[in-house]
Order: sequence, then structure tokens, then C-alpha cells
Amino acid sequence: MEFSSKLLENAVNEMSQLPGIGKRTALRLVLHLLRQPEHQTFQLSEALSKVRAEINFCESCHSISDKALCEICENPLRNKEMICVVEDIRDVMAIENTSSYKGLYHVLGGKISPMDGIGPQDLNITSLVEKVKKGEVKELIFAMSPTMEGDTTNFYIFRQIQDYHVATSTIARGVAAGNELEYTDEITLGRSIIDRIPFEASLKS
Amino acid sequence: MEFSSKLLENAVNEMSQLPGIGKRTALRLVLHLLRQPEHQTFQLSEALSKVRAEINFCESCHSISDKALCEICENPLRNKEMICVVEDIRDVMAIENTSSYKGLYHVLGGKISPMDGIGPQDLNITSLVEKVKKGEVKELIFAMSPTMEGDTTNFYIFRQIQDYHVATSTIARGVAAGNELEYTDEITLGRSIIDRIPFEASLKS
Repeated sequence: MEFSSKLLENAVNEMSQLPGIGKRTALRLVLHLLRQPEHQTFQLSEALSKVRAEINFCESCHSISDKALCEICENPLRNKEMICVVEDIRDVMAIENTSSYKGLYHVLGGKISPMDGIGPQDLNITSLVEKVKKGEVKELIFAMSPTMEGDTTNFYIFRQIQDYHVATSTIARGVAAGNELEYTDEITLGRSIIDRIPFEASLKS
Repeated sequence: MEFSSKLLENAVNEMSQLPGIGKRTALRLVLHLLRQPEHQTFQLSEALSKVRAEINFCESCHSISDKALCEICENPLRNKEMICVVEDIRDVMAIENTSSYKGLYHVLGGKISPMDGIGPQDLNITSLVEKVKKGEVKELIFAMSPTMEGDTTNFYIFRQIQDYHVATSTIARGVAAGNELEYTDEITLGRSIIDRIPFEASLKS
């Protein structure tokens, strides 16, 4: 792609570093900004550099927070003996939206993925193991995505804490609400039969 | 969507103002930046505010340029009597890529679209009409997208300059290379028969 302006080329190149944004989309976005009032671009630019420079992570659960402790960790009504282990803050937001969990979280900040060069030392695993060692935690819920990397991460953590007195569980895997059995993959359908639940328990929502 | 951090919320809100980027995508992009080295975000932020603040448009054709006159307008080898009227700089780049046009361009900066509140006064039409009035231009090629708005814009400009001595043409509309006739819409197929070209002429590429 040849540009008539170095400034434009530079902005497009930086924009196209974002995941899922190619050169063409980046050009479309930058040209859009050029058509909008100046302050829109300045606000975007300012908000991005500010969030990157001043971002703060909760000391306890490593979620993004403006204070030392996030609102969830700080909340006296939450059950502090239950920790839900998630990959990133989007998962916290997704689970919070369901209103069905009242414990705390622990944000790993990624999953073990040798292909992407991410090992256990790149994740917030040590602090989780420390929490378990202190005996403060009664149950650990693994809520990673059910993929190869998610399972590996779960298993790695499980091995670190299996000698301590803590219950571990993983979120249920099964046929999603509204899905047709016919189109459900074999692994999921197989597990949903093995992990079947008493009918009366299934009536609670 | 509830955020645990005002900084994060602000960045996501600004990002989601971009066309085609919703809140979820914006959050994904911002979280990606947070995982990357700080300088990547600062470079993006800097490039965006710089391009917006210092952007310059060619005095003659209104294309984006770092100098007063863009490279195309400045080039003595280009035919200055032929002007191709386009919507924005992306169209200039697309036509330049074909290497089949050696005249100049005139970038309107949009198309007449009452639904979006864009009228003729919002576009670079006056300066185009001035060029024609001066008698410097022999041919005007309308290269707007073949949509209702594009056609309206073409016709508006045509009415402004029809009393002056200038040839006008519009880019050919027809069946695109590689397309199946069966799936071509009726309007396009109909026009491609009305506007058929001598077979020998079609052999030149």
C-alpha cells in the first residue's frame, strides 16, 4: 500500500498492529477520524495512553482496578473462601453478568501456551498457590475456556495445589442452552452424558 | 457492560466510537494493548493525535499530502487536462494501483447524502467547478461508487459544469472480472449489454 503522506502511513501502520485490524481497516478508521472533529481523536489518543500508563491491577486478584483492591475483593459480602480462576478480566465481567457467583476471582492474565511462548512464569500462578498454602481458600473453581491451553493451565495449577486441603472443581461442560443435540460435537455430548445431573437439581436455575 | 476501572471504561468508550468497533471489540483491543509493551500504545496514541493535528490536504486536488501540492499534482509527467473525480483518498490509491490512469485527481471528501446530513457545500465541489471554468480541464471522469449517493453527486457536479467546454465520462459499469453472469444483478447485466464494447477494443488490457 503506497501512501501520499508519511503521517497517514505512520498512523495506519500503528493502527494495523491491533489484532484483527489489517491495513485496509486501519486506513478506514484513520480516515474516519480525520473526518470527525479534532477532539474525538485527541480524546481517543489521550484515553489510550492514560489507561496504559496508569493502569493498576488489584493486589489480590490481579483484575484491573483503579484502587489497590478491586471492588469485588473489597466487598465484605463476597465469600472469601471460594476463588474462581479465570484467564482475563473479560471472563470476570462475563461471570459477574450471570449474578450466580458470590465468591472471589483470581485473574491469571493468560493461559499456558507454549506455541505463543507463554509459560507458567508469565501468569499470576504463584500468588494463587500462596493463597491456597495459607489455608484461606476452601474451594477453587477452574473457569478457563475448555481448550487445550485452558485444560493445560488448569492441570498445571491443580498439580501445584493438590497436596493442600482445598476442594477443586471446574465449570460444567455440556450442551449450551438453545443448542440442538444433533449439531453438538461428540466430545461435548459424550461428557454431558457422563456428567449428567439429577433431574430435580436441573430444575433450579 | 460494567467496568472495574474508570480508565479502562474511558478507553473502551473512546475506542468504540470508531466505525465497526463495538464495545466488546473495543475491550479486546484495549486489553491487547495492556498486554503489549507500553511503547506500542504510546506510539499509536502519538501517531493518531499527530496525523489529526498536522494533516495537510493538497491545495489543488484535496488529497492527503505532507506538502502543499501532492506528488501526483506536482508530477510534470501527469496529464493536467484530465481530472478523475473521486470520493476519498482510498479511491485515489485504488486507481493508482491499477497503473492505468495518468491524469490528475480531485478528491471530493465524501458524497452527497441527505440521510447523513451531507450536502454539496460539505464537499470540495466549488474548487472543481473553478478549475473547469478556467478552461484548464478537457475531460472530467466521474469515478464515484455506483450507488444512489454516488450517482446524485455525479449529476450535481455535471449540472454545475455542463455549460462549459469539457468532456465528461463515468467509469464503465459492467460484469466484474471473474464474476459469473448467473449471479450478476439485473441492473449491472442490463447496462453491460447496452454499453457493450467492440470485441477488438476489449482485447486491450
